[in-house]
Amino acid sequence: MAIEDIEGKLGTAEDLTRYVRDLIAAAGADAPSAEATARAVVDASSRGVDTHGVRLVPWYLEMVEGGRVNTRPNLTFTQKAAAVGHVDSDDGFGHRASFRAIEEGCAMAATSGIAAVTVGRSTHHGATGVYTLAAARNGFAALGMTHADPAVVPHGGTKAFFGTNPISFAVPAPNGEPVLLDMATSSIPFNRVLLRRATGTALPPEIAVDAGGDFTTDPHATVALKSLGGGTFGYKGAGLAAMVDILCSAFTGMGHGATFAPFNGPDYSKPIPIGHFFLVLNPATFQALSLFDARIAAFLDDLRNAPAHPGQRIMAPGDPEHEEAIRRRERGVPIDRVTWKALAVAAKKYGVAPPRVTDTADVSDNRETAAG
Amino acid sequence: MAIEDIEGKLGTAEDLTRYVRDLIAAAGADAPSAEATARAVVDASSRGVDTHGVRLVPWYLEMVEGGRVNTRPNLTFTQKAAAVGHVDSDDGFGHRASFRAIEEGCAMAATSGIAAVTVGRSTHHGATGVYTLAAARNGFAALGMTHADPAVVPHGGTKAFFGTNPISFAVPAPNGEPVLLDMATSSIPFNRVLLRRATGTALPPEIAVDAGGDFTTDPHATVALKSLGGGTFGYKGAGLAAMVDILCSAFTGMGHGATFAPFNGPDYSKPIPIGHFFLVLNPATFQALSLFDARIAAFLDDLRNAPAHPGQRIMAPGDPEHEEAIRRRERGVPIDRVTWKALAVAAKKYGVAPPRVTDTADVSDNRETAAG
Repeated sequence: MAIEDIEGKLGTAEDLTRYVRDLIAAAGADAPSAEATARAVVDASSRGVDTHGVRLVPWYLEMVEGGRVNTRPNLTFTQKAAAVGHVDSDDGFGHRASFRAIEEGCAMAATSGIAAVTVGRSTHHGATGVYTLAAARNGFAALGMTHADPAVVPHGGTKAFFGTNPISFAVPAPNGEPVLLDMATSSIPFNRVLLRRATGTALPPEIAVDAGGDFTTDPHATVALKSLGGGTFGYKGAGLAAMVDILCSAFTGMGHGATFAPFNGPDYSKPIPIGHFFLVLNPATFQALSLFDARIAAFLDDLRNAPAHPGQRIMAPGDPEHEEAIRRRERGVPIDRVTWKALAVAAKKYGVAPPRVTDTADVSDNRETAAG
Repeated sequence: MAIEDIEGKLGTAEDLTRYVRDLIAAAGADAPSAEATARAVVDASSRGVDTHGVRLVPWYLEMVEGGRVNTRPNLTFTQKAAAVGHVDSDDGFGHRASFRAIEEGCAMAATSGIAAVTVGRSTHHGATGVYTLAAARNGFAALGMTHADPAVVPHGGTKAFFGTNPISFAVPAPNGEPVLLDMATSSIPFNRVLLRRATGTALPPEIAVDAGGDFTTDPHATVALKSLGGGTFGYKGAGLAAMVDILCSAFTGMGHGATFAPFNGPDYSKPIPIGHFFLVLNPATFQALSLFDARIAAFLDDLRNAPAHPGQRIMAPGDPEHEEAIRRRERGVPIDRVTWKALAVAAKKYGVAPPRVTDTADVSDNRETAAG
């Protein structure tokens, strides 16, 4: 789906990071947890990944207040072999644990060539691409995955079993932003359904199911999602979801996604111990960096210049978000009105000063609204 | 797509392996190359993966006779770091190089926990799942990928750029066959188009494009494929194809898929140096094996018993192929008539004795024909 325009407030990434950090810290989180969570959600918002950006913060505050998230975790890292490590998040914010996993992974991959770092006893970590991108900005390639609570029906099934179980892959690109794939293994995330309920717009066919497990395009009738590939080829998306679930459960020591309580409550009192799986690759171990860079550059050049339908152009994974990031650096990072109001309530409660913002209604912008 | 019934000859896996091995050896291949290639294609055929099974052998013989494949390669393995190795296939059969990559990967992962093994200067290796399955049967999990010549249009594009670039993942399962995902990142392989041309059946919508890059359901008008996800979500399948292409090119030292000459000729005189990427994981490094096995068993149990539509049941990745393998062990492994005839011509030319077979027409079978 194209990146959608957000109506609401516009702030700088720096100001919003400070705001989110202070809010989460004021709710009780220790400094590293607040810092990592703010960094992750503002990074997502600044690239147009609004479903996994600042709009998650009111939900995170709710989880903190309910007791689901350990705000002062004893985060530990254990190296299990030359190329394998494990981060125990101690029920703390998944963002902090995931950044740590990438740091440790880069350090190990620098000598071993590659490293797998699992994360256990974690919580929601926002957009998985935030962490693979952090590795790529540091000169490493990375593969990242997380499982989640049931939202996607298995192929042939009628009830949600898999999470939207995203796969992310990032690789450094010479003279440019890293290539960044970050995709749910369902066609859409469930947040898209909520958005369509609000706008009263029908969903595309074969991506959502009703209470009986039958396809529906009505967002109000939708209770679960279909895996990527739809009615005929959905076994492929479900197969990818199974791979993600296995790597994030059996390999991390956690249970599989179908054993989890609903992420969206109503019970926020108990931890839901989820897992993440990261693989970090050191390009220089595989090839001379000059050859590696030349290969990536040639691939991107050929792909971006491939023949396209009239009025379209071919984009590499991450190109839309990179272009949106440039736009948002100039214009400001938007926070939708619902989220902004919820943050304002929390800010008042905790005595946190809001950042300086403008309103999207007051900012001229000749860009056409993207299709949903 | 469901596993399709094949009309033709039925033989035992052992007899067919001997036949294929002798044919490839008689065409000039050294013993390890002939052995590995026969093992790979008969393994695929014996599990119902007929598109990548014995039907490839006449094409392989054509490549050998044309000079594309080095029949007596100097295969070398270089360990580049504790957890990274590279197999140079010296333009030899990709099957031999890929089995070697898995062997070396298992040996490295036994101490490092995980290992990446790239393969370069390779050729077609059949079904990628053959190699990840070999790792899983040896107690390791594995991720495997290969890129290929252009057959899939990028999202928004009109001409083929990506190969069908499969992803395979296998993990050992306690008391049963390994979980095995093995999927093209397009909805179908191009062989499915050829089959539909022969049967005169229309293709499903949004999986194939014509010479102008527009969707078509006419197999005769089809010149390229659309990535998994179709018209709206095909950027996801294309993103996965890009990931596979990068891991199989920049990381292996080879060019990306769009630089390759057509795999199907007509020029078979020159090597097309492709790459494969394998990751091997040692479960015992990640978790105590008893816990790991219990997690996998619980996942499979819950998935297979999840609520299904009437008349359907939920299958884990690899279940359909495992059930077909049991059936084919009893009934025989089928070779379609076109392939059988081509093999017979080669057998006569090289003086290879055909195996004992029966004809599917003479074998009663009350199983209904699977939908195409």
